[in-house]
Amino acid sequence: MPEVTRSLSARSSKSRSDTPAPPKRHRFTFASLRGNYQPELSKRLFRLIKSENYVINAYESAGHERQSIATQLSEWGEQTGDDAVSELSDKLGVILTEIGAQEDIFAQNLEDYRGILKQIRNTESGVQPSRDHKTKVQDEIARLKYKEPTSSKLVTLEQELVRAEAENLVAEAQLTNVTRAKLKEAYAQHFAAVVERAEKQAILAKHGRRMLNLLNDTPVVPGDTHEPFNSERQARQILYDAEEDLRIWTLNLEEVPTQAHSVVGGVLDGKAAATSSLAPRTAELGNHPAQLGIHPAHRKVSGASNHSNAGSSSSSATADPPYPISQEERRRREDMIAAF
Amino acid sequence: MPEVTRSLSARSSKSRSDTPAPPKRHRFTFASLRGNYQPELSKRLFRLIKSENYVINAYESAGHERQSIATQLSEWGEQTGDDAVSELSDKLGVILTEIGAQEDIFAQNLEDYRGILKQIRNTESGVQPSRDHKTKVQDEIARLKYKEPTSSKLVTLEQELVRAEAENLVAEAQLTNVTRAKLKEAYAQHFAAVVERAEKQAILAKHGRRMLNLLNDTPVVPGDTHEPFNSERQARQILYDAEEDLRIWTLNLEEVPTQAHSVVGGVLDGKAAATSSLAPRTAELGNHPAQLGIHPAHRKVSGASNHSNAGSSSSSATADPPYPISQEERRRREDMIAAF
Repeated sequence: MPEVTRSLSARSSKSRSDTPAPPKRHRFTFASLRGNYQPELSKRLFRLIKSENYVINAYESAGHERQSIATQLSEWGEQTGDDAVSELSDKLGVILTEIGAQEDIFAQNLEDYRGILKQIRNTESGVQPSRDHKTKVQDEIARLKYKEPTSSKLVTLEQELVRAEAENLVAEAQLTNVTRAKLKEAYAQHFAAVVERAEKQAILAKHGRRMLNLLNDTPVVPGDTHEPFNSERQARQILYDAEEDLRIWTLNLEEVPTQAHSVVGGVLDGKAAATSSLAPRTAELGNHPAQLGIHPAHRKVSGASNHSNAGSSSSSATADPPYPISQEERRRREDMIAAF
Repeated sequence: MPEVTRSLSARSSKSRSDTPAPPKRHRFTFASLRGNYQPELSKRLFRLIKSENYVINAYESAGHERQSIATQLSEWGEQTGDDAVSELSDKLGVILTEIGAQEDIFAQNLEDYRGILKQIRNTESGVQPSRDHKTKVQDEIARLKYKEPTSSKLVTLEQELVRAEAENLVAEAQLTNVTRAKLKEAYAQHFAAVVERAEKQAILAKHGRRMLNLLNDTPVVPGDTHEPFNSERQARQILYDAEEDLRIWTLNLEEVPTQAHSVVGGVLDGKAAATSSLAPRTAELGNHPAQLGIHPAHRKVSGASNHSNAGSSSSSATADPPYPISQEERRRREDMIAAF
């Protein structure tokens, strides 16, 4: 009996001895190389998403092989010349083919889950420049205050810092909102896929066992032969029953409700943000309220619902993050996304 | 909605268009080469068993990757600095690790099922020489009757044919008995493994969804932070519940009873065979009942229960078939078995 709670943590530092599987070594490829160019913030999720690809490939391969074997089983049965074995191996083949097809559907569902995780990763990699920018301006101010405390550039830089801080506040809020909402969505989807595969394959396997009961394995003595097989009708009925059970099957799960419906681009929808808490909150930040009118982050946020950045769908993943990015950064983002 | 009965047959001649997966091409290896040296009779099953290996490897790989990803998820969560995400990603990691472990157990169960199929394959490859021998003697008699109808060798050959026919009758009975009994046993085991994995993973996934409901994904506005996470106790309780559900889980399946219990070495147990139907049946065969006393096949059959050839367990797979085999044939059989 496996013990889920032999460890109450999956973290390797605490549970290394309970986690028998070290990360698999895969071939060194251009794709794995690309991971090294990920912003620090999104590196871990980048690798996790990559690893999910190996899982998906494994299930696809298991599903296809299972279907190929189902055909092989049927053809072997035909070749035995034993009518019962021939008929039943063929019907078992149909059930095994469907079990394999479910494995394939599971792989597709995992692909969807993987797409949701990518939205977190894209937000992470979009937020990194915002953090970097803020740090850069802070460093520049500190450097200048030490070297040229009277420089007129300091005023410009402090204005820039206020903008950078406000922009970063938005970015960090987007990050935490997207992370929670999409983590919940991704694993709700993942677990639903596990349950769907499980319940459908269990239905099929149970009908498979009924099918086996049509095979009389009472031994014959040398020279004797088995009675002719006369359960074709029952065998066909079992397939119809299996099909009907799959047809009426529904996914019946505890709901995983989300409170994230009002998230657009990772923060509250623009109007709410502009009229309620965002305004006073951002006002507290700066000594230059006049700047707020042209705040790039704010401009993005209050732009209503026609912009849906990293957060809301994977097709929008190539959209810019809600703050200015360089040409180089934009190209890098597009390369990264195109590569998937 | 998949339709199990879109085809009532898994045979490729009838259902090629419904079977999307052509047999996968694998690398050409010494192992695949070995398939070419299989007796004709066991070639198909030999390949099927080989293909099952790819399925098993795929599940093992999926299981190990899943466990590695569970750790990666937990470590990513820790790095987000979000206490709720950190705590829950870690607990989700524990559940995903267990789902991966179930995949591994499934692979082991498939390995057992594969072992049962090998017993059919070994019987098939053991029966081939018996068929070949009978045919060879028949051909030799036909040739001699045409060329030297008066040859004294004909008497010897006809005696040999009677022995060969009797031996082959036993071999064919063994084949059909082993085939039916082991086909039933193998797939009953296979389907039970599918159900076990399904039901246990469904339990885990459902608790996983409960876990997700502890994650508050109500969006925050820029500058705001989430409430501190205070559901550690509930999260731990979900893991305990999952463990308890797995602990009390039992496999509850329709029985697949077998009538094959009296099979020893693929035919009825020796005493029954010697005293009941075998004796009159074999007596009908030959004109030389005196030969029966030393009949090699009969000797094997009536040798009571201390011999258990190809049929009864995989550890006995290296035993000789119940008829004389050449040194070369014995070596080939041993090579073949050792290679697995």
